[in-house]
Amino acid sequence: MSGEALRIGVCGVGTVGLATIDILLLQSAMVSARAGKDLKVTHVGARRDHADHDYGDARVSRDVMDVARDPEVDVLVELIGGTGVAHDLIKLAIEQGKHIVTANKALIAEHGNELFALAEAAGVQLGFEASVAGGIPIIKALRESMAANEVKQVAGIINGTGNFILTEMSSKGRAFGDVLCEAQALGYAEADPTFDIDGTDAAHKLSILASLAFGIPLNIDGPVKQGIDTVTPTDLDYAAELGYRVKHLGIARQSKNGVELRVHPTLIPEHKQLATVDGVMNAVMISGSAVGEVVLAGPGAGGPATASSVCADIIEVARHSNGTGPAMGLPAAELNAKPLIPSGEIASEWYVRLSIVDRPGVMSHITKLLADRGISIESLVQKAPESGRSEVPIVLLTHMAAESVIIDAVEAIKAFGEVGTEFALLRVETFE
Amino acid sequence: MSGEALRIGVCGVGTVGLATIDILLLQSAMVSARAGKDLKVTHVGARRDHADHDYGDARVSRDVMDVARDPEVDVLVELIGGTGVAHDLIKLAIEQGKHIVTANKALIAEHGNELFALAEAAGVQLGFEASVAGGIPIIKALRESMAANEVKQVAGIINGTGNFILTEMSSKGRAFGDVLCEAQALGYAEADPTFDIDGTDAAHKLSILASLAFGIPLNIDGPVKQGIDTVTPTDLDYAAELGYRVKHLGIARQSKNGVELRVHPTLIPEHKQLATVDGVMNAVMISGSAVGEVVLAGPGAGGPATASSVCADIIEVARHSNGTGPAMGLPAAELNAKPLIPSGEIASEWYVRLSIVDRPGVMSHITKLLADRGISIESLVQKAPESGRSEVPIVLLTHMAAESVIIDAVEAIKAFGEVGTEFALLRVETFE
Repeated sequence: MSGEALRIGVCGVGTVGLATIDILLLQSAMVSARAGKDLKVTHVGARRDHADHDYGDARVSRDVMDVARDPEVDVLVELIGGTGVAHDLIKLAIEQGKHIVTANKALIAEHGNELFALAEAAGVQLGFEASVAGGIPIIKALRESMAANEVKQVAGIINGTGNFILTEMSSKGRAFGDVLCEAQALGYAEADPTFDIDGTDAAHKLSILASLAFGIPLNIDGPVKQGIDTVTPTDLDYAAELGYRVKHLGIARQSKNGVELRVHPTLIPEHKQLATVDGVMNAVMISGSAVGEVVLAGPGAGGPATASSVCADIIEVARHSNGTGPAMGLPAAELNAKPLIPSGEIASEWYVRLSIVDRPGVMSHITKLLADRGISIESLVQKAPESGRSEVPIVLLTHMAAESVIIDAVEAIKAFGEVGTEFALLRVETFE
Repeated sequence: MSGEALRIGVCGVGTVGLATIDILLLQSAMVSARAGKDLKVTHVGARRDHADHDYGDARVSRDVMDVARDPEVDVLVELIGGTGVAHDLIKLAIEQGKHIVTANKALIAEHGNELFALAEAAGVQLGFEASVAGGIPIIKALRESMAANEVKQVAGIINGTGNFILTEMSSKGRAFGDVLCEAQALGYAEADPTFDIDGTDAAHKLSILASLAFGIPLNIDGPVKQGIDTVTPTDLDYAAELGYRVKHLGIARQSKNGVELRVHPTLIPEHKQLATVDGVMNAVMISGSAVGEVVLAGPGAGGPATASSVCADIIEVARHSNGTGPAMGLPAAELNAKPLIPSGEIASEWYVRLSIVDRPGVMSHITKLLADRGISIESLVQKAPESGRSEVPIVLLTHMAAESVIIDAVEAIKAFGEVGTEFALLRVETFE
C-alpha cells in the first residue's frame, strides 16, 4: 500500500452512515487496495448512540463539529441530511482543509454554489455522487463520461418512493394513501413524506443534474414542480389502455430559448426503457450530442446502495490527492446561468381527461375549442359512463402545445358548462 | 485555461477517428473548458487520404509510427484496430512517454496485461473506455463507481451487430442470412462478420469486463463461446411464447468455486431490463455486494458514440496529469488469476427443443432420462406437428443443471431413437 492512510470521519449514523462504516471496516482490504492506500475510519460523529455497532478504532463524538476540527481526519463524510447542522459542518470542515463527501441532495441543491466555491478556494474535493439516485453513478457519468457531449436533455425517475407508489397503484390498482402507508412501513418514505410526494425531493436532484449537464449554477427554485398526489388510479388505467405508463419524471432540457426544468407525473410510451423501471428503482436517461441516449438504472436509495456511492467518492479522494477537477466539471466561476423557460411556455403533448354531458354538439364544441387554439388531437377515446352517471368520460391525447395554451383551452371547456367537474391534465413525453 | 495545452495525436481515421477529430476541433471550447486546458490535435496518422476532411492545424503522416515519435504529441489516440500495427504503435508511444487512449478491444483483451504493465512502469495513462460498449461508460463505472463493491456478476449485451440481428429475426421473423446482409449494408457488421457472429468480439469485451470486475488478469481464451448462428427463428418464437427473449449475452460470474466466463445466446425473462434492449443498443448489468443491480444501456457502436468515450478518456488524461491510478483499478502486479470454471460444470436452467415420435411411452421415457440425471422440468409444452410431419415438437424448460449433465441427457435421448434429428439447447438465465 503506497502513501499514508486516508483518515475518514463519518458524521451521521443512519442507514447510510452505518452501511458506509461497515464497508470501510469489513471490506477494508478490498477498498484500500482500490484506493491505493489504507482507508481508516478515525472518527464517528453521532448524536445517537449505537453502542451495539462496531466503529473499529474510531473515536466517537456526540458533537459532529468535533469531527470537522479533528486533525486526524482528512475527509469528512456528511450523512446527517438537512440544510442546518450539515451546512455548518461542511463549511467548518472545508475551512479546516478537509475533503468532503456527502449524500445530501437538499444541501447541495440549496448551498452547492457556495460550497463548491469554498472547496475550490481551499483546494479540497467535494464528492456528492450519493446525492442523486443512490447507487447509480449518474454524477460521474455526467461530469466525466459525457464531457465530450453537449447534453441536450436529462430525464429520469429520481424519487424511488414516488416510483414505488405509482408502480403499486398502477400494477395492483391500489389507492394512493394505502400504498403510502406501506411505503412508510417499509422505510422507503420518511415519517413526513411531503418532499417525496410533492416533487420537492426530485426537484432538488434535478437541479443538481441540470447544473452538471448544462454548466449552469444550481437553482433550487428553478424546477416547475408537480407531485404524484395528482395522479388517480383512473388515469393510470386509461394511460395503460393507451399504451403508456405514468412515471414521475424530472426533466431538464436545453434549447436555443433556454432551459426547461420540471418534475411532474408524465405519460411515457410503454416500450421506452424508463417505462419499465418499477418500484424503488431509479433511472436516468442522458441525451448527448455525440453519444445519443444513454440510460443508467439501479437502486435509488437504501443504505448499502447509497454507501456504495459514498465509498466510491472516498476512494476517489484517496486516488487523487491532487484533486480531480471542479465538482461540477467546470470551475464555479465558469458556470453561467441560462434563461429558465417559464412553465406556461413549456410545450409537450398532453393527456386530458374530462367528462361531458352526452348531448349532440357537445363533443364538436369541445374539439373546436381545442382547434381554435391550434391544439390538434392525436387520439380521442370516449368511455362508457360509470354506472348511475349520465356524464361520459373522454380521454384525449393532444399533439404539442404550450402549457398556457392547453390550460386556456381547459378553462374554455369548463366555461362552456356541458362538462363534469372532474378534470385531469398530464404531460406526455415520447422522447422521440 | 490553466496550464499548457494537451497535444493529441490521432492514429486511424475511420468513423471513430474522424468523429473524435470533429469533436476536438468543432467543440474545442467546450472540451477544453471541461479538460481544464486546451486540447489540440497536433498530428494525425492515417494511411488513407481524407483530403476533404478538416484536421485543423494538425500535421498528417502516412506512417503512424511518426505520431508515436512526435515530441509535439502528449497523448496518442489509437483508432486503427487489430492487434498488429496497433500493438507496435502503442508500445512505441509508451516508450516515448506518451499517454494512450484506445478503442481497441481485441488489442486490450489480447495484450492488455503487457500494455498496462508497460504504461504503469512508464508512468503514463492508458484509457480504454471506448473498447467495450461504445458510448456506455462501463469501464469507469466498474473501475471507479463500483470500487466499494465485490462484484458478483457482470452480464450484458455487448455486441450490437448480434443484438441487431436477433432483434430483427425475433420481431420480424426474418432469416439470419437476410438480416446479416442488411446489417452489413447499414455498416453495423464488418465485411467479414465472423467475430460478431461467432461470439469472438463479445468474448474479447467480456474478458476486459471480468478483469475489471474481479481483479483478475485478462484472459482472452477464458470465455466459453457460442455464437448467434445457432439460434433459429423457431426457437425465438417458442421463447417468446414462453415469456422469454433470446439475447446474446456475455456473462462473468464469480462464486466460491471460481469464475464463469461465457458468451452465448440466452433466454431471459421478458420483463428483465436486458430483455428490452433492442437493435444495435448495448446494455450491461452489474451486480455488486453493496449496490445491488445497476444497468447501463446505450449505443454500443457508431462513430460519434464511440468518440464520446474516446474524448472522455482524453479529457481524463488532461485533468489528471499525475495519473488516475492503474488502468484496471489495481496495479497490474496485484491482479490475481482465479480458477476458471469449465464449460461442462457451469450450471443454468435450460431450454431444450426436440421432436418425438408420437407414440405411447415416448414422453414418459424421455422425462425419465432427465429425472435419472437429477434434471427437473420446469415446464413442458407439446406443440402441434408441422404439416406433413409425424414428429411432434416438444419444448422443455429445466431447472438448474450443469452443462455436462444436460448434454449427457440429450445424448441419451438421441440414443433412445424415437426422436427427430432436430435439437436445440440454449441456456436460460432469470437473474433472480
